[in-house]
Amino acid sequence: MPFTHTVRVRYGECDLQGVVFNANWLAFVDDAMTEYLRHLGFDPTETWLGHGPFDVMLVDAHLTWSAPARFDDTIELAVVPTRLGTTSFVLTTTATVEGRPTCTTVVTYVVIDPAEQRPRPLPEVLRDALTPDLAAG
Amino acid sequence: MPFTHTVRVRYGECDLQGVVFNANWLAFVDDAMTEYLRHLGFDPTETWLGHGPFDVMLVDAHLTWSAPARFDDTIELAVVPTRLGTTSFVLTTTATVEGRPTCTTVVTYVVIDPAEQRPRPLPEVLRDALTPDLAAG
Amino acid sequence: MPFTHTVRVRYGECDLQGVVFNANWLAFVDDAMTEYLRHLGFDPTETWLGHGPFDVMLVDAHLTWSAPARFDDTIELAVVPTRLGTTSFVLTTTATVEGRPTCTTVVTYVVIDPAEQRPRPLPEVLRDALTPDLAAG
Amino acid sequence: MPFTHTVRVRYGECDLQGVVFNANWLAFVDDAMTEYLRHLGFDPTETWLGHGPFDVMLVDAHLTWSAPARFDDTIELAVVPTRLGTTSFVLTTTATVEGRPTCTTVVTYVVIDPAEQRPRPLPEVLRDALTPDLAAG
Repeated sequence: MPFTHTVRVRYGECDLQGVVFNANWLAFVDDAMTEYLRHLGFDPTETWLGHGPFDVMLVDAHLTWSAPARFDDTIELAVVPTRLGTTSFVLTTTATVEGRPTCTTVVTYVVIDPAEQRPRPLPEVLRDALTPDLAAG
Repeated sequence: MPFTHTVRVRYGECDLQGVVFNANWLAFVDDAMTEYLRHLGFDPTETWLGHGPFDVMLVDAHLTWSAPARFDDTIELAVVPTRLGTTSFVLTTTATVEGRPTCTTVVTYVVIDPAEQRPRPLPEVLRDALTPDLAAG
Repeated sequence: MPFTHTVRVRYGECDLQGVVFNANWLAFVDDAMTEYLRHLGFDPTETWLGHGPFDVMLVDAHLTWSAPARFDDTIELAVVPTRLGTTSFVLTTTATVEGRPTCTTVVTYVVIDPAEQRPRPLPEVLRDALTPDLAAG
Repeated sequence: MPFTHTVRVRYGECDLQGVVFNANWLAFVDDAMTEYLRHLGFDPTETWLGHGPFDVMLVDAHLTWSAPARFDDTIELAVVPTRLGTTSFVLTTTATVEGRPTCTTVVTYVVIDPAEQRPRPLPEVLRDALTPDLAAG
């Protein structure tokens, strides 16, 4: 079972068509990624505020929608790593509402050295944490 | 020269890393698309509120970042159609800050019949408007 | 004990100063109000989408901050009605982080007839639901 | 004539009721305040990123709506200082759409010493810049 993060759609996250505004999907995925890294044992405040051993930078995001989500829907976001590169990794997030697929997102993160602000090889601690969950993309 | 829409980055659109939060790029692209359709002669309020001959639904968005944008940066978003399908079209938006590439977005829109809420063939008026700008994707 | 709604601060909700961007407090309060009305027995999708017996419109919001909230903080939002008028009611939301006060918001809602889009007297069902929780403002 | 900043309402800034989502008004006011400080001669990136002589913190915001703004509306935000205190100042922003009042916002900012993160007296350069525009609140 992949790690799953749940969000309930807020009123202000929907647009005039009555569905989640497209940009908010990236915000949901960002939130799911934070919770996934917490689940793996990384402290989000350390990691994202540059006090941890690494920081990440999003370089590519590909979103595909098969159905909208609406106000008050509960969205389940299942997160799995689908590729581990030298300095980057890919997380694929599959969002469903009551089991019905809505949005799949494939996001590539580059690992950054907080001091030098440059790509660095995946730290072992991160590679070891992601590897057991690795799935075909 | 492609159609270009300009936004200045607001303070609240940036995150803790000091750069535009990733989800806001989709909001900028949505705004640029609205202005592009206005430039082609379509009234955004008619079109997006379902009173026009067609509505559009975003089904695929692929964002690639080569550099961040920061608070108070002026972002130029150049919009060109890069594919016209039977019921869909693709707009490619290239964002630059002072000529430096930052984010490229390829978005696929499906054309919807407002009454039936189902895909419909591109109306002639939209195909005719997009065709002169069509570029290789 | 007042009704309490909890949100965890998302990365993208914080700004360059490392704190929740001011506008997002209104979004949190909106979310807390939705959950409070659900707690009182009203279905948010019915109510906010104009299919219920009433809709509400926000006409006044007064926010006072005593401390910021930061990324990953858990915010407890306690909601109490502090005034019932003829066509309006006031909800006061007190936000705390680990018991420490951060933001108090006093919001006035006018009740709207969905069909006529004009203020209407508070429906009995709403007045009866709010009255037991009524507190001094 | 007060300083005026103009924003056009983006599609994603509106909610299911077809009007600007309440929280976005604070974002508009924040943007107008940035542009007002620029107009007074302060560099926003210096000021807001803590490299200038002072930083500001919002401690109180009071919003009153008399009418909504809708998608594609052009909002004029007129900004005037309405109080200068020892360590704080108040900006009142009056928003209109085609001359019709929509939202008035009274925001209190405390001036912060960037190094010590504590309130400090208004710097002379700021007091001198605000004083000629001072109006009755």
